[in-house]
Amino acid sequence: MIICKVIGNVWATRKEETLSGEKLMVVQRMDLDEKVSEEIFVAVDCVGAGIGEQVLVTTGSSARMALRNQDAPVDASIVGIIDEVQAQAGE
Amino acid sequence: MIICKVIGNVWATRKEETLSGEKLMVVQRMDLDEKVSEEIFVAVDCVGAGIGEQVLVTTGSSARMALRNQDAPVDASIVGIIDEVQAQAGE
Amino acid sequence: MIICKVIGNVWATRKEETLSGEKLMVVQRMDLDEKVSEEIFVAVDCVGAGIGEQVLVTTGSSARMALRNQDAPVDASIVGIIDEVQAQAGE
Amino acid sequence: MIICKVIGNVWATRKEETLSGEKLMVVQRMDLDEKVSEEIFVAVDCVGAGIGEQVLVTTGSSARMALRNQDAPVDASIVGIIDEVQAQAGE
Amino acid sequence: MIICKVIGNVWATRKEETLSGEKLMVVQRMDLDEKVSEEIFVAVDCVGAGIGEQVLVTTGSSARMALRNQDAPVDASIVGIIDEVQAQAGE
Repeated sequence: MIICKVIGNVWATRKEETLSGEKLMVVQRMDLDEKVSEEIFVAVDCVGAGIGEQVLVTTGSSARMALRNQDAPVDASIVGIIDEVQAQAGE
Repeated sequence: MIICKVIGNVWATRKEETLSGEKLMVVQRMDLDEKVSEEIFVAVDCVGAGIGEQVLVTTGSSARMALRNQDAPVDASIVGIIDEVQAQAGE
Repeated sequence: MIICKVIGNVWATRKEETLSGEKLMVVQRMDLDEKVSEEIFVAVDCVGAGIGEQVLVTTGSSARMALRNQDAPVDASIVGIIDEVQAQAGE
Repeated sequence: MIICKVIGNVWATRKEETLSGEKLMVVQRMDLDEKVSEEIFVAVDCVGAGIGEQVLVTTGSSARMALRNQDAPVDASIVGIIDEVQAQAGE
Repeated sequence: MIICKVIGNVWATRKEETLSGEKLMVVQRMDLDEKVSEEIFVAVDCVGAGIGEQVLVTTGSSARMALRNQDAPVDASIVGIIDEVQAQAGE
């Protein structure tokens, strides 16, 4: 899983039926210094995350395991809201 | 999922049977400033997307969930047409 | 899927049984200007592709969907021979 | 699999139910000179790893094979504690 | 699949049970000029590969198809020993 910051929302009226009702959030990967990477992506929120929160994002086919409808075409899900990261990066 | 811009079409007469009838579109990943990345790839259109539109693209095995024929050898699908992205990138 | 150029063949006498009889081709990813990337990889040819041709390559577990034996350990397949790419890259 | 160093822990009270009870550790990829990459990610510990240890991390859907609950939305697992790496990098 | 050079072994006494008895080898990706990339990873040997040999490595969930125990948490397998690569890189 990767540590991300939730930075916004995406709206798409016309979409795959199985995505209906899912909250699509824009996330950015973070490193230990809370610096974010430039690349953004979109993840389905499965835990009630809010803008600005640090979250745990699962990618790939495993992301579907967190959905109500596991047949939805989803490759990234927010699966946890991070309380604390306690880590020291090596060199 | 990633945010992409649809920039064109691909034609392939000789292809896997299970891909017959699928619309193959060329897409480019975008960031929040609507700047596109250099890498392009090809996604199956599942929502009636048009050239120039911003779309949501699912990659990997989850891309197959959006197809009529889920046994087609597809690793990228357009699963939504984006109305609006409301997000503010962190630093 | 990604757009690649077929640039050669790989021979491996000693290999997984389920790969027997599959044609292994060396491919290079291309961009819209037909410039190729440095990284090469090996894909199973499922459509009768020839050296120099532009092809559509599916990667990941979806690549297995194009094989006669879907239990073969394959993560890249050539699934179409490209007739034409009609696209204009954004900036 | 990739060789990583365990550098910390992540706590997330609000998370997918299927993740309950799993130990979430922060890991960093290493090369042969034991230099770590900048990118960090989070893996579920399946072998009782400790901070500072060199471990073997499996990513993608295969990561779920190491879990007690294989339906958990997990894309990285610690599957071994490395005793020794005996390798000489090429040029 | 990617073309790699086998450069060593990894030992891990404490590991997932399903990995018991598997030979874990350190591999480096190669390009056509036989230059290797800096990143190393660990693959399960399924074909009796030796140090220094050029091999074909399958990654992702497809890597499990080459194992005796397809439920092992493995994301990279050596599936062939390369006799010859006959290819000419484009520009």
